[in-house]
Amino acid sequence: MKNITTTEITICGHAYEKYLGMINGFHGNIAPGVVVGGLMVDLAYRNLPHGQYLDAVSETRSCLPDAVHLLTPCTVGNGWLRIVDLGRFALSMFEKYTGVGVRVYVDSRKLEKWPELKTFFFKLKPKKEQDRKALLDEIRSAGTAIFTIRKIVVDLDSITSSKRRVFTVCPGCGEGYPRIDGEKCLSCQRDATYSYFDLKKPD
Amino acid sequence: MKNITTTEITICGHAYEKYLGMINGFHGNIAPGVVVGGLMVDLAYRNLPHGQYLDAVSETRSCLPDAVHLLTPCTVGNGWLRIVDLGRFALSMFEKYTGVGVRVYVDSRKLEKWPELKTFFFKLKPKKEQDRKALLDEIRSAGTAIFTIRKIVVDLDSITSSKRRVFTVCPGCGEGYPRIDGEKCLSCQRDATYSYFDLKKPD
Repeated sequence: MKNITTTEITICGHAYEKYLGMINGFHGNIAPGVVVGGLMVDLAYRNLPHGQYLDAVSETRSCLPDAVHLLTPCTVGNGWLRIVDLGRFALSMFEKYTGVGVRVYVDSRKLEKWPELKTFFFKLKPKKEQDRKALLDEIRSAGTAIFTIRKIVVDLDSITSSKRRVFTVCPGCGEGYPRIDGEKCLSCQRDATYSYFDLKKPD
Repeated sequence: MKNITTTEITICGHAYEKYLGMINGFHGNIAPGVVVGGLMVDLAYRNLPHGQYLDAVSETRSCLPDAVHLLTPCTVGNGWLRIVDLGRFALSMFEKYTGVGVRVYVDSRKLEKWPELKTFFFKLKPKKEQDRKALLDEIRSAGTAIFTIRKIVVDLDSITSSKRRVFTVCPGCGEGYPRIDGEKCLSCQRDATYSYFDLKKPD
């Protein structure tokens, strides 16, 4: 296994150890997925022209979005980071107005050489039984070797809504909601998707 | 209108102006929605016991999630913040293991006294025509006066998946995906929801 010293790796200009500290502060622990995510963001940036207005799409909601939050101007709240939860550990970054950019993904074929990473990504063992230290060592050693990067042109029409949403008061709950959702807000329509909001009354 | 000086308001222990700076750094600009969101997080925290493990649900993906990112340990990536995009500007925070907590929402009835806030939340004017300074002044003056807070008990069964997802290689794209999604990953199933990933080939 190739040994790489800490000083050799930077993540978007941050020393590797510093990035681990940033993860700990924001995410609550040095989650392996956010470490891997940082390497993916770094790889994407290295393959995109500087000074562009970039948007990002994460194809998972686990871990990867927080790497984007830590290292780029894109956040869920400002809309420059979108989460399309396909369950794939993949990140696209592209120029906002043309859709031209790159997609970086964890390439399952490249995981064969990295047993802890393979176990982690395919959840071959419960988290408690995974060797966390060995996993973090493998992440550092593997660096970008487990990724594949492809040029992409995102179909902007499919992800951009040009309509300014009109809001109105829901006759059910009395709260504001986007009128396009229907006669009542989605919660009051009790779509099964949103069963979270079948809130029990407190005692 | 009640005038409140800067020093009177804190957001989760941060001076108001400091919080505005935090927003600017993370979100890219002092977005009114993130300012309002901070007041909501602060109100929720003041009504929850200290020292609990808290989860959060944002009912919108606009702005509000970034207030949670800035002020709480909950992030999208660590899963303690969930976004259930009902289009309502509402935040629930609750104890992770019991579901007991509070829901804070912008109460449309309480917006009548605050014309700029009403215009902002109901998108009565295009953003360019809104008076940003007057809006930020109103947010500060209104403080928590535009919110309603309710005790809740969240039905944890409806939002918690106890099953560890098994991952496998998709026969379509060759990438890892959660097997529960079907014979192929959601992208290769070309579900209309995910048309984003009908990526055009680059020239």
